[in-house]
Amino acid sequence: MKPIVLSFPDDAGLAGSVSRELQARLGSLEWRHFPDGESLLRIEETLAGADVVVFASLDGADRKALPLRFVADTARELGARSVGLAAPYLAYMRQDARFRPGEAIAARVFARFLEQSVDWLVTVDPHLHRIAALEDLYRIPVACVESAPELAEWIRREVRDPVLIGPDEESAQWVADIAGAARIPYQVLHKQRRGDRQVEVSAPDPERLRDATPVLVDDIVSTGRTLIAAAEHLRRLGLPPPVCVVIHPLFSDNAHELLKRAGVERIVSTDSIRHPSNGIGLARPIARAVAGQLARIERGTEP
Amino acid sequence: MKPIVLSFPDDAGLAGSVSRELQARLGSLEWRHFPDGESLLRIEETLAGADVVVFASLDGADRKALPLRFVADTARELGARSVGLAAPYLAYMRQDARFRPGEAIAARVFARFLEQSVDWLVTVDPHLHRIAALEDLYRIPVACVESAPELAEWIRREVRDPVLIGPDEESAQWVADIAGAARIPYQVLHKQRRGDRQVEVSAPDPERLRDATPVLVDDIVSTGRTLIAAAEHLRRLGLPPPVCVVIHPLFSDNAHELLKRAGVERIVSTDSIRHPSNGIGLARPIARAVAGQLARIERGTEP
Repeated sequence: MKPIVLSFPDDAGLAGSVSRELQARLGSLEWRHFPDGESLLRIEETLAGADVVVFASLDGADRKALPLRFVADTARELGARSVGLAAPYLAYMRQDARFRPGEAIAARVFARFLEQSVDWLVTVDPHLHRIAALEDLYRIPVACVESAPELAEWIRREVRDPVLIGPDEESAQWVADIAGAARIPYQVLHKQRRGDRQVEVSAPDPERLRDATPVLVDDIVSTGRTLIAAAEHLRRLGLPPPVCVVIHPLFSDNAHELLKRAGVERIVSTDSIRHPSNGIGLARPIARAVAGQLARIERGTEP
Repeated sequence: MKPIVLSFPDDAGLAGSVSRELQARLGSLEWRHFPDGESLLRIEETLAGADVVVFASLDGADRKALPLRFVADTARELGARSVGLAAPYLAYMRQDARFRPGEAIAARVFARFLEQSVDWLVTVDPHLHRIAALEDLYRIPVACVESAPELAEWIRREVRDPVLIGPDEESAQWVADIAGAARIPYQVLHKQRRGDRQVEVSAPDPERLRDATPVLVDDIVSTGRTLIAAAEHLRRLGLPPPVCVVIHPLFSDNAHELLKRAGVERIVSTDSIRHPSNGIGLARPIARAVAGQLARIERGTEP
């Protein structure tokens, strides 16, 4: 029996591509709102015995959490054999500690919530900082897709003489991965916070950037402040306008516009979150990871 | 040890009154948003061994569900002995069946979600229709506060020669309760839906309404369409302008304004949901119900 993909509205494009890669059936999922704001979820009803893949990138997680639970529980009520979640962007990963007394460690609570909702999870490059691996946080099977090969391929194809630049020390991990995959040089900027809103950066070796195209890379861009500070630093060094490559384009408020105004020539993102800057497709690696989860379930049901 | 009340921002007024009635300590609960929309919850940290009452009316349930979970789980992590929920308005009660194939029965899924979050639930007049009693839906201890005595008292005090009017057959249950408590007559209008948006109503005995003040009563007012149709019918009968008494004032969009324009002279609601129309306080009966839950926990821990 073919697996059935149920996609949240924002994710219809990527979910469609993943379904084709998987040779799965794309089922129907409606999400309406009553005048009082309550959600009405309605799904494909012929799920008996099927393995269901719910497709929901988790930007706006507060808004999507209950609807996700409605879909997962209803799929089970309608006879689905398993219900998994493909969430290209995984929410709440940055709240991985109690920074002040009494704060919720949201990454952990959210993990418990998802475990109660679905049987497995596939995501793309989760923001791992104090938590070493997603398996340390989740008690259900998880698979992390790495976007580095796709980013590397795009940079090699689209940018002349690229030098990767990580905007801060935290970015060193994925910048090194992408640079390795693309076989291109990289540098990581040194970031210093001056007060709450000001950020100062400096390049370790500006001379080696002279004749290259700087490619700024970050995993999550929300306000864009880190990338904006990096772009302004590069401009002060007299370097050519940078290209920005973003894994998860959250782009809150007018961040996308501010980045352009800071002299960024081109901004490209993966389609982990739907955004006008999407230019790097992740359907194939996500489909491979989902296929792995479905194969595991199939093996688990063998006698 | 005194119980600790943690209130969501919208419910601070009612939660404060309930805390005083209970002689509980009102703890601090902060709810901030990051630029990407994620919630940061921070609570009173001295909870070790305490019984915690989270106060959150569940209008806008999608928005509040995860934050509620963050608070409840964090309270437990910080050592709370028990965590209960006072939700004067209980969400998703109207989605108590699968009206079309494949629809989520949200009332049931939401009940499972709350059970995973808290140890007990106190609410006010939940909208019970196909589900006979809240105990049939919830597997944790629940207590339903009845607002009828408070509504009856308000009507007796504020309205001259009142006749209660239920806007449709569904309202008969609480209109009869309130009329009984206030010892005043009542009638229930007969409602017929004509198409998706048109509603027609008729009074069973208009003559007996001639010299009275009509008091329209409804449990949940969202778009206000039912009350508006009722008010317009009363106007066509040439009756004096009605008073509207509402248990749960959701008032989506401009419903409150439309009701006034339909000739309603005065609109009053309980404070189960914060709204400018609030005029009937429920702190005392809610405090009694919460005290009952806390006493049950105390008994449960006795040797």
